[in-house]
Amino acid sequence: MLLKNALVISHRIIKKVVMPGDIVVDATAGNGNDTLFLANLVGDAGKVYAFDIQDTAIENTRKKLIDNDKYNNVKLIKDSHENMDRYVPDGVKAVMFNLGYLPGGDHSIGTKPSSTIRALEKALSLLKPNGIITMVVYYGGDSGFDEKEAVMEYVKTIDYKKATVLVHEFANQINCPPIAICIEKCK
Amino acid sequence: MLLKNALVISHRIIKKVVMPGDIVVDATAGNGNDTLFLANLVGDAGKVYAFDIQDTAIENTRKKLIDNDKYNNVKLIKDSHENMDRYVPDGVKAVMFNLGYLPGGDHSIGTKPSSTIRALEKALSLLKPNGIITMVVYYGGDSGFDEKEAVMEYVKTIDYKKATVLVHEFANQINCPPIAICIEKCK
Repeated sequence: MLLKNALVISHRIIKKVVMPGDIVVDATAGNGNDTLFLANLVGDAGKVYAFDIQDTAIENTRKKLIDNDKYNNVKLIKDSHENMDRYVPDGVKAVMFNLGYLPGGDHSIGTKPSSTIRALEKALSLLKPNGIITMVVYYGGDSGFDEKEAVMEYVKTIDYKKATVLVHEFANQINCPPIAICIEKCK
Repeated sequence: MLLKNALVISHRIIKKVVMPGDIVVDATAGNGNDTLFLANLVGDAGKVYAFDIQDTAIENTRKKLIDNDKYNNVKLIKDSHENMDRYVPDGVKAVMFNLGYLPGGDHSIGTKPSSTIRALEKALSLLKPNGIITMVVYYGGDSGFDEKEAVMEYVKTIDYKKATVLVHEFANQINCPPIAICIEKCK
């Protein structure tokens, strides 16, 4: 199949824009999959800043990076992504978000609408022109609906002169398939 | 910019799936741009069936093909796309739709919700496994809203075991930017 899921869409877009030497952010380290993906793309000359508020996520990510010998170009930060501007310099090429709870973790400790939107505002401000934010929005089951609605409403209000927002929705799938949102900062 | 418009999205997807020798359909020939695009992709070993109900569209398309020396592998059909099964054999690789009125033409003679949906059903049935339908949905100004709503509702009802529907919407643009809908038939 050519049409895969939201995660594949976000990775395809990131692969098109992130180059060796770039500064990038994994706003939701989770189990470290995107952190490792980004570490491979930016290489030793680049830098990945990876955020999570959960000890488990930071430790899982650290372990994944060490196992794959990709630790030197990653900075793991145990803090909310809404504070990313305290750690990350301007001129970021891409910021990846996975919104929802930590896969395999506690569904009650997920990302929350208000801090997610503050994090998105910070991410937009840190991005360089033509930089990209990707968001994979997980919802359904017992959580995530409020956050999905809040994020969808927020992205509609982003000034079109500042950034372009493209929403990818799988319209006929069952069980709330994740949505991929891509935001490209204008020149 | 990486994120372009709905037309560019549909062309990117078609380029990934349509190969020399394929049978394809331009369901809305209009001014012939997509017919020519498809004729170039399928080459002399392939076949493009191009439909339009307006004489002007058929003539504009014919002229464009002749000017570009791409006429031998195209069949122009002045009939509604809802009758495409009368002309097109099974095993189609891709069907392209531009929904709305003929650019530069009479806004009162646009595609209509009921016939568009019958055409979509025919297109789905003619497609080979992993074949693709693309729709660029123009709406706004004085027309197109009913059709957009009808198409968006219809695609949600397509059985997910038969096809995957991916909707691309530009969420923060002004003036009703066109929507790109992509439908991939399952194996």
